[in-house]
Amino acid sequence: MEKINVIKVGGAVVEDTTALSAFLDAFTQIRGKKILVHGGGRKATAIAGRLGIESVMVAGRRITDAATLEVVTMVYGGLVNKGIVAALQARGVNALGLTGADMGIIRSHKRPIRNGIDYGFVGDVEYVDATALKTLIEAEVIPVVAPLTHDGAGTMLNTNADTMASEVARGLARYYNVTLTYCFEKAGVLANPDDDSYVIEHITPESFATLTAEGIINGGMIPKVENALAAVREGVTSVVITSTAMTGGTKISL
Amino acid sequence: MEKINVIKVGGAVVEDTTALSAFLDAFTQIRGKKILVHGGGRKATAIAGRLGIESVMVAGRRITDAATLEVVTMVYGGLVNKGIVAALQARGVNALGLTGADMGIIRSHKRPIRNGIDYGFVGDVEYVDATALKTLIEAEVIPVVAPLTHDGAGTMLNTNADTMASEVARGLARYYNVTLTYCFEKAGVLANPDDDSYVIEHITPESFATLTAEGIINGGMIPKVENALAAVREGVTSVVITSTAMTGGTKISL
Repeated sequence: MEKINVIKVGGAVVEDTTALSAFLDAFTQIRGKKILVHGGGRKATAIAGRLGIESVMVAGRRITDAATLEVVTMVYGGLVNKGIVAALQARGVNALGLTGADMGIIRSHKRPIRNGIDYGFVGDVEYVDATALKTLIEAEVIPVVAPLTHDGAGTMLNTNADTMASEVARGLARYYNVTLTYCFEKAGVLANPDDDSYVIEHITPESFATLTAEGIINGGMIPKVENALAAVREGVTSVVITSTAMTGGTKISL
Repeated sequence: MEKINVIKVGGAVVEDTTALSAFLDAFTQIRGKKILVHGGGRKATAIAGRLGIESVMVAGRRITDAATLEVVTMVYGGLVNKGIVAALQARGVNALGLTGADMGIIRSHKRPIRNGIDYGFVGDVEYVDATALKTLIEAEVIPVVAPLTHDGAGTMLNTNADTMASEVARGLARYYNVTLTYCFEKAGVLANPDDDSYVIEHITPESFATLTAEGIINGGMIPKVENALAAVREGVTSVVITSTAMTGGTKISL
């Protein structure tokens, strides 16, 4: 199968013009088929604040009422997405901005109330239409995906960008040899969180059990690696957790 | 050549939930290949107002400084475009939202200062990549185009939706038998502007000269019909100016 890179970059990079530019240079250099999935949470919080809408986060996820849904639809689907698309076009990359609603590529449903927490217009992914994405990819298009989905009944839903990247990667595994890369502010999964030079090079399901038992992988890194392992179990060839420069990092595979 | 309908709908419809829903029902009923080009100016003015940004219009066009460019990129490319895409998907239409930056379909340049008026980040269209649009259309996609273009150097530009619809129609005339339809609040070009029952059924270059000489077509309708005549001279089969119900109206052709 042909290779494809699914690359996720978060809101911290997206809101920093210099960091975003450096990241997009690195993304441009990647050869072959590729997809970018981006966040934008910090920008949404800033615009919401200017509109007098308070941002309420629970466990790192945004409570999305109707006013907040308007904000994230504007910011993720418009401001951030089109800014990246225009910047990639200027680099000669044939970028096309998408949300889950466009061509119906990612359908979700409104998250049910659990443990008394109503996240509002937040979507849990039901399925990815990998065939529609493949049509674009085979037409030499580079999809740039904003963290928004739709419910198929006319409502956009706010969806976590990490999850969307993972779902897109799993969906495309039917057609491609997929590498899923998460770019963030650290060099990779660190054996010592205060030292970027202690990157764990490779994690497998077996080594993950040992690393968590020994407390070397802990806190917020545990769900990240668990998500990565779930993706490789569902056909993604490997997941890489790395810096925005995309050099080195931690490889997670079976 | 196969037929295609390029349909433009303005900001007044877009901001009125009931009118938009009725229009999208009518759009859904149109058989065959089609493209929707939408405005959104009133919504942009409303959001800009809430952000404390004053909307300055000159000759019906928005002066677009950097802050206003952010607003129109958010509102046209995000809020309005994705709202329409999700609503069409709910109707079974395989909609895909686009700006001129996506797949580089519409390149423009920043409008030069003329007569001392600096419109700011407003784009005058340079070219439409009809081949890229055709790729999507032949893949059974229904493009939904927001009134934004890009300059190819990374900057989005605010662009008049009427002009974009006309440019898209002219570009596609290489490949398709194009009908360009402008939907607005009147039933068509009226012989008596206060009476919707006096619709001029057909305008040709010859009859236009007579109708303007006699003052029957006047004011803001003159540039609208002039634009339509320019489109049919450049290969568009016919231009229709009609209500949002898209029944009847005025046909403009050679």
